[in-house]
Amino acid sequence: MQSHFIEKKFAYDGTQLRSLFAYLDHGILGPSIVSWQGPCSISFDHMVDGEDLLAKAVIQGDEMLHFIIEVFDRDLFSGVLLQRMFASIAKDYLQHNSSSVLGERSLHRDGDDIYLDDRKLSISIATRSPVSVMVHFAMNVTNKGTPVETLSLGDLKLDPRRVSEDLMTLFRKEFISIVTATQKVRPVP
Amino acid sequence: MQSHFIEKKFAYDGTQLRSLFAYLDHGILGPSIVSWQGPCSISFDHMVDGEDLLAKAVIQGDEMLHFIIEVFDRDLFSGVLLQRMFASIAKDYLQHNSSSVLGERSLHRDGDDIYLDDRKLSISIATRSPVSVMVHFAMNVTNKGTPVETLSLGDLKLDPRRVSEDLMTLFRKEFISIVTATQKVRPVP
Amino acid sequence: MQSHFIEKKFAYDGTQLRSLFAYLDHGILGPSIVSWQGPCSISFDHMVDGEDLLAKAVIQGDEMLHFIIEVFDRDLFSGVLLQRMFASIAKDYLQHNSSSVLGERSLHRDGDDIYLDDRKLSISIATRSPVSVMVHFAMNVTNKGTPVETLSLGDLKLDPRRVSEDLMTLFRKEFISIVTATQKVRPVP
Amino acid sequence: MQSHFIEKKFAYDGTQLRSLFAYLDHGILGPSIVSWQGPCSISFDHMVDGEDLLAKAVIQGDEMLHFIIEVFDRDLFSGVLLQRMFASIAKDYLQHNSSSVLGERSLHRDGDDIYLDDRKLSISIATRSPVSVMVHFAMNVTNKGTPVETLSLGDLKLDPRRVSEDLMTLFRKEFISIVTATQKVRPVP
Amino acid sequence: MQSHFIEKKFAYDGTQLRSLFAYLDHGILGPSIVSWQGPCSISFDHMVDGEDLLAKAVIQGDEMLHFIIEVFDRDLFSGVLLQRMFASIAKDYLQHNSSSVLGERSLHRDGDDIYLDDRKLSISIATRSPVSVMVHFAMNVTNKGTPVETLSLGDLKLDPRRVSEDLMTLFRKEFISIVTATQKVRPVP
Amino acid sequence: MQSHFIEKKFAYDGTQLRSLFAYLDHGILGPSIVSWQGPCSISFDHMVDGEDLLAKAVIQGDEMLHFIIEVFDRDLFSGVLLQRMFASIAKDYLQHNSSSVLGERSLHRDGDDIYLDDRKLSISIATRSPVSVMVHFAMNVTNKGTPVETLSLGDLKLDPRRVSEDLMTLFRKEFISIVTATQKVRPVP
Repeated sequence: MQSHFIEKKFAYDGTQLRSLFAYLDHGILGPSIVSWQGPCSISFDHMVDGEDLLAKAVIQGDEMLHFIIEVFDRDLFSGVLLQRMFASIAKDYLQHNSSSVLGERSLHRDGDDIYLDDRKLSISIATRSPVSVMVHFAMNVTNKGTPVETLSLGDLKLDPRRVSEDLMTLFRKEFISIVTATQKVRPVP
Repeated sequence: MQSHFIEKKFAYDGTQLRSLFAYLDHGILGPSIVSWQGPCSISFDHMVDGEDLLAKAVIQGDEMLHFIIEVFDRDLFSGVLLQRMFASIAKDYLQHNSSSVLGERSLHRDGDDIYLDDRKLSISIATRSPVSVMVHFAMNVTNKGTPVETLSLGDLKLDPRRVSEDLMTLFRKEFISIVTATQKVRPVP
Repeated sequence: MQSHFIEKKFAYDGTQLRSLFAYLDHGILGPSIVSWQGPCSISFDHMVDGEDLLAKAVIQGDEMLHFIIEVFDRDLFSGVLLQRMFASIAKDYLQHNSSSVLGERSLHRDGDDIYLDDRKLSISIATRSPVSVMVHFAMNVTNKGTPVETLSLGDLKLDPRRVSEDLMTLFRKEFISIVTATQKVRPVP
Repeated sequence: MQSHFIEKKFAYDGTQLRSLFAYLDHGILGPSIVSWQGPCSISFDHMVDGEDLLAKAVIQGDEMLHFIIEVFDRDLFSGVLLQRMFASIAKDYLQHNSSSVLGERSLHRDGDDIYLDDRKLSISIATRSPVSVMVHFAMNVTNKGTPVETLSLGDLKLDPRRVSEDLMTLFRKEFISIVTATQKVRPVP
Repeated sequence: MQSHFIEKKFAYDGTQLRSLFAYLDHGILGPSIVSWQGPCSISFDHMVDGEDLLAKAVIQGDEMLHFIIEVFDRDLFSGVLLQRMFASIAKDYLQHNSSSVLGERSLHRDGDDIYLDDRKLSISIATRSPVSVMVHFAMNVTNKGTPVETLSLGDLKLDPRRVSEDLMTLFRKEFISIVTATQKVRPVP
Repeated sequence: MQSHFIEKKFAYDGTQLRSLFAYLDHGILGPSIVSWQGPCSISFDHMVDGEDLLAKAVIQGDEMLHFIIEVFDRDLFSGVLLQRMFASIAKDYLQHNSSSVLGERSLHRDGDDIYLDDRKLSISIATRSPVSVMVHFAMNVTNKGTPVETLSLGDLKLDPRRVSEDLMTLFRKEFISIVTATQKVRPVP
């Protein structure tokens, strides 16, 4: 698994969640996690979460830290599990690195979302392309432009670029360790 | 997914990690998580972690809280991810429910293990049977009989039965939500 | 598996055979069978059976009872088998419930079709979407507007709504029993 | 798919349900259905149906018509569906060819079993080997030696050898048509 | 696996690499290899090799011998392996049948390409459709119109039609032997 | 993919073809190709090729160069293709490096075997374990002790150790290039 921070800022509008985005747009080959900073605004045409479509949800924010994960040759069940692992890793990381701000309060993960009490930090979806499973995960850098009460990396006094690099490193390490764990175990009857 | 606490105490010796253990021994049909309390001592014949076999590891404890997860029709990659999710859920639960003991100290998850500093709380393995993927996860109830410096639910002032029931409920909820997430998403190109 | 009868009448034109039709249009989540009554007319653009395309077949009827089955995470081989099971269940049900009309004559199933002698009662196709396998199965409510000599539920003196509800119940029961049968069997060498 | 009737009579004791039985014992290569006549008596060691094991069921008969189906490279879900299709084909065939005996009475299929009222004609299990899915299906030739009230091919005035050949031909035709149906259909979105 | 030489000459422009091309355009059902002669010119819209897209490669030739392989129900890893096998078979065949031209010089295969020294004989890509894996493989009949220094069947004094028929026969034989090899082997622990 | 030459000589008796052989016996983790030199004698108990079992074949040689390939998470169809690729790579390598001995004569590959005219150089089988697909491939170092007329590396004046290292390097390169090829291609409709 390769990781890459894209220096250029650009908006996530849902079209980035397509197979080979990391390779064809950024030259990153194979299983990957890429990240960048930019606004978020997803039209219904590119909204893939059926629950959001049914709810006619507004998904937007003025500035978010985006991640796109792509893994080949796996089913969607694994894709959702990878998404949940990423959310879990992110939650632990943020809790650990924002202790001065959070004090005794705790972030919590609910499925693929991270919250502080009722304030939502993140959005996410896992889906599949014809050749891969893909995850979009994004955290508010600021609370501006979000349709509900949110939490942001700004609130947590965290630098988005540093958060991006650290989370990509942690996820990459976890991914490699998971693959390894499938290759060193004896079967049972 | 069904869950079940087995009232009777018995030792985990590795032979419980076989397909249909929950169904044939305890009548629990389908994807399941079952749990019980008892000692742990795994012979090399029933040790499935190749890393432990190479290290000639001693895996034992006088009293542990055991969990066995079985999920059908999935690959081992998913099985390892389910194992990591369980470890992550357990870590969060224990942190949240032991705050009076832990104070500002934090439990941390490393792969499938839970630690407080260098003290290891848990052991775990994910493997596959011919018809399913299976996870064994166990936490020390006491530190007696363990071959290394460990942490136990006793140290955390937690009741094993309550921990068992709560973790099975949380995992079951997570599993259902993961399956659902694979059935409500549109594909991408 | 959930089942649902859609009260509103509308035409089947082939576009209903797409992933998440039951969820996005009718709020039915997960593996499902949905049914409704309406005309049938499928353009070549939305005809998925290559055999029909090569034959430039006309597929239409003034009033049919439609079923759409969607099952996630299975291959097309399973999808075709589910289609054949549905045809088999439908044939048995109709035979049993039309004895006063049929007398000693027998309906028969040939692949995914149901016939009385040369009169064709049904049309069907099984295919796959990027996230699921899907089946369309429809029976003539009337013989009007069909391009060949047909049989209809009207000929059999059967109420389409009742047939719909009964067949969905029977198929749902069979589906659950099939899934269960994969979770209670020991492997062989 | 090849089919083969084994002339020699021998007992089914459960050990025949193993991968490559048709190839290694009878030279039939590839997906296959083989059949023979003989007693049936399955010890608990070779009983693979967990439900029977839990019920400590007695599975035996003095003379049965046995079928073993083996299909490579498919999941158990497909294996159970193939089993149900075979039961469905057998039921239709027997109903059609025993009309002089049955009169207005109807055989019915319940899952993988065939009944006349409460009299059970058949036993069956679908399972998987490491390289294939396998089905055992057997019908009583006589009611002697069966532990419950049963129906037999003798009751239906049917010649086991003829039934065997006809059912293997019908199943083979169905199997080929199912595979073909997976290779001539366009995907849907 | 069926094979078929398409008599009519036509250009390969990338749109032929779609599921059911052999069946819907040429009536060839099931796993297949089809072949024809014609120019080659692939627009970026129909270029599926990401490496070519990133390199903005020009892929064309005035006259090539084209092959399209389609195999159902396999993953892309198998599709790439089938492509490499075809390249290997083609290389051996051409070496053997051009000895009078080649003398002591050897053709060599590098991944999916065939070369004589630096002169490239072939282009190829393996990809997947929603229902199958597909391979396009083409060899220059002439060196006219190619963007780099190439080798052609003309240089090797070989008749394209004969090459086509022979390679399809060899590949078909290999494919059948591979499938057979998966159905006659015992599993290991 | 890792590769490893095992310095110690030992006999191949069929028991080496088991999952995790490279890891548990030689510490090589993940997809791997390992090789060693030693006699070959396979008892019927450990013979996995059904064709050999039916033929009661004698498989032995006094000194062979053995290779075991293990790849996780793939089906047997891929396993057989990997085996054929290895045979093809080996044949090309030997032809190229034995030109002084072979002159104008050509080695040829037939399925998984390499021949010079009727003299057989190699034996091979591909099978699956519960967690992986595995290939055994071996070439005679000497013709002593073989049950049929054979060819050996000695006849070709080749050093087994050098052949081993070169073939492992070539196969490893091919494997990586195949995996890469599955991660850089756009799907087709």
